[in-house]
Amino acid sequence: MSIVLRQHIEEIVALTDSEFEYIQSLFTHKKLKKHQYLVQEGSYVTHEYFVLNGLLKASYTNETGKEHIIQFAMENWWVTDYQAYITQRQATLNIDCIEASELLSISFENKKLLCAELHKMEYFFRMKASLGYVAMQQRILSLLNNDARLRYEQLMQQYPTLLQRVPKLLIASYLGVSRETLSRFSAS
Amino acid sequence: MSIVLRQHIEEIVALTDSEFEYIQSLFTHKKLKKHQYLVQEGSYVTHEYFVLNGLLKASYTNETGKEHIIQFAMENWWVTDYQAYITQRQATLNIDCIEASELLSISFENKKLLCAELHKMEYFFRMKASLGYVAMQQRILSLLNNDARLRYEQLMQQYPTLLQRVPKLLIASYLGVSRETLSRFSAS
Repeated sequence: MSIVLRQHIEEIVALTDSEFEYIQSLFTHKKLKKHQYLVQEGSYVTHEYFVLNGLLKASYTNETGKEHIIQFAMENWWVTDYQAYITQRQATLNIDCIEASELLSISFENKKLLCAELHKMEYFFRMKASLGYVAMQQRILSLLNNDARLRYEQLMQQYPTLLQRVPKLLIASYLGVSRETLSRFSAS
Repeated sequence: MSIVLRQHIEEIVALTDSEFEYIQSLFTHKKLKKHQYLVQEGSYVTHEYFVLNGLLKASYTNETGKEHIIQFAMENWWVTDYQAYITQRQATLNIDCIEASELLSISFENKKLLCAELHKMEYFFRMKASLGYVAMQQRILSLLNNDARLRYEQLMQQYPTLLQRVPKLLIASYLGVSRETLSRFSAS
């Protein structure tokens, strides 16, 4: 199973077998059913997760009960409530499973240890954070530019299988458009 | 001057004098006048910048000529077109000076060298990237939640001096609201 994690890391840094054995020893395997929560608003966020298979969403629910989807996570994605994780505080997001999911989890302490012990893993996680930062910046640009059709097209280009796996209502929530607006794009 | 950079780094990792001397040797000092460009759309982005003093904006201009501000940068901030910098491609953003600015610049190659030579600097930049990612995520949430007044209040809370230093039109562009909407908030 964890060959997937090794391949994922080795897209950025090469690992020896013993390095990967050490890395692997710091992760725990986790299985969740459809609709089950990985992170609940208000709970302490002690772990970060790598998705082996399945599909999750990270979302924020505002005072009026409206849900805004901040991130989908599927195979080879990392997910947690990063603000809570980094600052070791309580979650403001909910993360739950759209499909049954298998994950590898690493605690804040073990990630710190891993990065301190293996410089190349510090580099790996720096690269992942930088790429994540850039992806977020692109999403902000598309939100400011307010072109909902373009946002939809970009999402479909990046993740062509997403529309088959995710209900349209959730795609609309991610894009910040109404379901009616989305139906117009996705039908054309 | 570079005591400012040392203090900034030492908020996250402690440095010896010789380590800081080495770090400093990889940076170049740069002075720009008001309205001058640091990065221009279409140019290759080879450097990242630390702001010693002054104020800049990073923005994207869409097909119709409308400018969307992605970031302000002032004292102790890092700025560049990160997408172009990380992928070593041409800029899609413009970065120009709202005030005359003094910067320290580090090339992509020197940053790579610095992080490889000094593990603690890899850690430092991992932390900065992670905190940047979280800040971007918060901004996406406030854009999706579409509460312009809250966005304005958060910005003023984070950077109370910004409104004095930045024309209202630019604040409006950053927040993704019209100047009229902004005037209503800022007057109240």
